[in-house]
Amino acid sequence: MAAPVIALLTDFGLIDTYVGELKGAVLTVNSDTTIVDITHHVPPQGVDAGAFLLGNAADAFPSGTVFIAVVDPGVGSERRPLLVETPRAAFVGPDNGLFTRVVWPGTVDGPATPVLASLPPGVRAWRLTNPAYWREHVSNTFHGRDVFAPVAAHYASGVAAGTLGERVDAIWRLPVPQPTARDGVVTGEVVYVDHYGNLVTNIPVTILPTAAVVEVGEQRIEGLSMHYDAERPLVAIVGSHDTLEIAVPGSSAAEALGVGRGVQVRVAPA
Amino acid sequence: MAAPVIALLTDFGLIDTYVGELKGAVLTVNSDTTIVDITHHVPPQGVDAGAFLLGNAADAFPSGTVFIAVVDPGVGSERRPLLVETPRAAFVGPDNGLFTRVVWPGTVDGPATPVLASLPPGVRAWRLTNPAYWREHVSNTFHGRDVFAPVAAHYASGVAAGTLGERVDAIWRLPVPQPTARDGVVTGEVVYVDHYGNLVTNIPVTILPTAAVVEVGEQRIEGLSMHYDAERPLVAIVGSHDTLEIAVPGSSAAEALGVGRGVQVRVAPA
Amino acid sequence: MAAPVIALLTDFGLIDTYVGELKGAVLTVNSDTTIVDITHHVPPQGVDAGAFLLGNAADAFPSGTVFIAVVDPGVGSERRPLLVETPRAAFVGPDNGLFTRVVWPGTVDGPATPVLASLPPGVRAWRLTNPAYWREHVSNTFHGRDVFAPVAAHYASGVAAGTLGERVDAIWRLPVPQPTARDGVVTGEVVYVDHYGNLVTNIPVTILPTAAVVEVGEQRIEGLSMHYDAERPLVAIVGSHDTLEIAVPGSSAAEALGVGRGVQVRVAPA
Repeated sequence: MAAPVIALLTDFGLIDTYVGELKGAVLTVNSDTTIVDITHHVPPQGVDAGAFLLGNAADAFPSGTVFIAVVDPGVGSERRPLLVETPRAAFVGPDNGLFTRVVWPGTVDGPATPVLASLPPGVRAWRLTNPAYWREHVSNTFHGRDVFAPVAAHYASGVAAGTLGERVDAIWRLPVPQPTARDGVVTGEVVYVDHYGNLVTNIPVTILPTAAVVEVGEQRIEGLSMHYDAERPLVAIVGSHDTLEIAVPGSSAAEALGVGRGVQVRVAPA
Repeated sequence: MAAPVIALLTDFGLIDTYVGELKGAVLTVNSDTTIVDITHHVPPQGVDAGAFLLGNAADAFPSGTVFIAVVDPGVGSERRPLLVETPRAAFVGPDNGLFTRVVWPGTVDGPATPVLASLPPGVRAWRLTNPAYWREHVSNTFHGRDVFAPVAAHYASGVAAGTLGERVDAIWRLPVPQPTARDGVVTGEVVYVDHYGNLVTNIPVTILPTAAVVEVGEQRIEGLSMHYDAERPLVAIVGSHDTLEIAVPGSSAAEALGVGRGVQVRVAPA
Repeated sequence: MAAPVIALLTDFGLIDTYVGELKGAVLTVNSDTTIVDITHHVPPQGVDAGAFLLGNAADAFPSGTVFIAVVDPGVGSERRPLLVETPRAAFVGPDNGLFTRVVWPGTVDGPATPVLASLPPGVRAWRLTNPAYWREHVSNTFHGRDVFAPVAAHYASGVAAGTLGERVDAIWRLPVPQPTARDGVVTGEVVYVDHYGNLVTNIPVTILPTAAVVEVGEQRIEGLSMHYDAERPLVAIVGSHDTLEIAVPGSSAAEALGVGRGVQVRVAPA
């Protein structure tokens, strides 16, 4: 049988040894796991960005993957350590909203401010309370290594969630900005700028008009492209998570347009 | 039996979740693989640099390794997705020249411009045409995750290349800058500047005079060093891929000399 | 049986293909290993920083881990390639002081300058002299790939240390800055600034007064916090390696205070 997959998303960066120590703590419990990095470059303490990136990446992993997600400004405080089971996967990390998009994917009726929200059907959560499954010495500042990593490794080895902690019915949920539609015009925003300078919006392909005109800043783009068409200075395209993206073929749209996260994007029928 | 090795080279960077998603797509097909990063910092859309780095790294991997190489400005267009088999390894990625140096290693009679070139003896290639081995939903912008990763994982699991696509006899080949020799003087160039600021040239050890004088910019270096000799301000040394390198021991030659890629390097007998 | 764990710490960075080539060289010898990155961002040629980071990270890994540590400005010179066995783990790399903190952990009576020091009880070392366990062609500049990686992989596969080289009784040891205590006041220094801008000191929790006043630069912090308390502008906290840290909750202490490595920190009883 193949080793269980444990996938990591943190704001630790790769300069320090923190990611390595977390992996060492996983392997100390179960050295027969396949550990995969999603990213460790969530902006420091950027819970909201972490939730977005985890939501984007989780579906690409095999069913049964155990995710350790650590963006944890409240480490050592009263914020709860969690294990969350969804129908596809399990998630271990702090209860601060980081799991919003994997627990409530794609829903448009979310809260306007962070709230302690009841779990939807098919999702269960446990507050991690059993120190028998933690590192022997638990620091105040690094629960990624001392609590989340060993708990995830024990869970991946077959320890039942109910042994690791106590059931909870509600966890923190963050607001997720949604596009609006009025008179056929969809208004959304740039929610992420990637490594290539592509502007990723929150406008899903499902609400895009077939023949669209896209407006961002002072630019106007006629029609959607099927690829990064080098003959066009600027393209609107459906990106890898099925939302509208704006790109400059062979270059950076963020630089060329001088815009970034939060900028409004409008889509009207042609 | 040990798990198959799948090695990755991309221009995705490590900030976004793209590398993680590609790995997730590999593991979704076959979670019993050993995935190794070569680098994800090929300059964005730098097919030429990607070909150079892949050519440098491939030989360090075990025979039978499956490489996924994705520097793919033409994703979603008519550029062909490929699987290439050489006597030592297999390579999956776009047909844009990225495989030039692993398919035609060390040859000096290459083209002066990119060409569709017949494959040399011992090398076979397939255009990936069988969507049964792709991700169920294929995006326009991320064939690394949706086509190349699942195809590589199926191939590593034993699916025959002929099942994945249709044989092709020619693939794109890029020009590779070669040094010239005249009257005993070899003239080459800096083709890469590494993390330490070492200047890597395209002058192979095989054509270096035994007692050499190296000239770069206004600097003149007498003799080759056997190590980064801290007693010399500047050394010429045979680097880890058997080509001439120029280094400042304990510091950066690129900074000290103010030169970079493309700068001419001359070697004459002493 | 689970695959052996091989953990890597280098100054190679992640831009070039060097880390990938080193991993390829490990897998060429034994493809059934679990390779883990600790960090590859030790400052270039920063042996002292490498020793600090290796000392921090090693204990988080399972007993029996084989570490490859390469910060190696003397590569190709007469500096010795080593394999060191401690009671918990094995370490492969150059003999330049990089193993100081794993061979002599936490000792306060270290040397004031680098010295060739006798090994403490329970630690054994071998100079790597047997080229049968190296890569066939050994470069002058990349012993990480050509010597250390294959030796570590052979050792992890069960080859005895005595087969790989010759016993040595002394290896290089670096000075480790220690805090001083006088009249109840402990004086130490910032020895590391992490990704979050936290100031890591060399003052161990074992010598901290219960009720402490911490002084750094012109700042004065009353009492130790148990977490990154968002209600305080500046906190003193025991960090993940049981030493005093100074942090700005939600931000960077290094930036806020304008201080960095080497800055003095004083702790007095309240």
